[in-house]
Amino acid sequence: MRFDAHVEVRLRPGIADPESATIERALPALGFDDVSSMSTGRSFRFAIEADDEDSAAERARELATALLANPVMEDVSTTVEPGRD
Amino acid sequence: MRFDAHVEVRLRPGIADPESATIERALPALGFDDVSSMSTGRSFRFAIEADDEDSAAERARELATALLANPVMEDVSTTVEPGRD
Repeated sequence: MRFDAHVEVRLRPGIADPESATIERALPALGFDDVSSMSTGRSFRFAIEADDEDSAAERARELATALLANPVMEDVSTTVEPGRD
Repeated sequence: MRFDAHVEVRLRPGIADPESATIERALPALGFDDVSSMSTGRSFRFAIEADDEDSAAERARELATALLANPVMEDVSTTVEPGRD
């Protein structure tokens, strides 16, 4: 069975995040002074062949920590849902 | 009122995505031959001050297209929910 997985990789709290700091500094000059607490991350979507949703989620987590994230600096959040095709 | 916004920026279909292609090529050698259709994107989370959820969503979309994405090459998806703090 095919599942759609979504992995979001974000810097751990306390790790310097210059991209977010730069965006946040630019916001007031661009008219977005109602926006704060910017944080950036990377997002990955992929398909997994698995027997059930639990094993698909397990595989997505393995892939995320092995290949997509640096566990020293980054947190991973994973969601899996039955594929739509 | 404070809302939490999440913006996901992905390359439009048909735009070359060498990062995803590289990940996908590495998967079988790393034991993930059950994974396919990799696509990568960037993810942004931030807080917005707004009167209601509709105007918060509208502001998040404005910010995403003005500052976070390149609308020529990238698609944006935005979700907004009431802030948790």
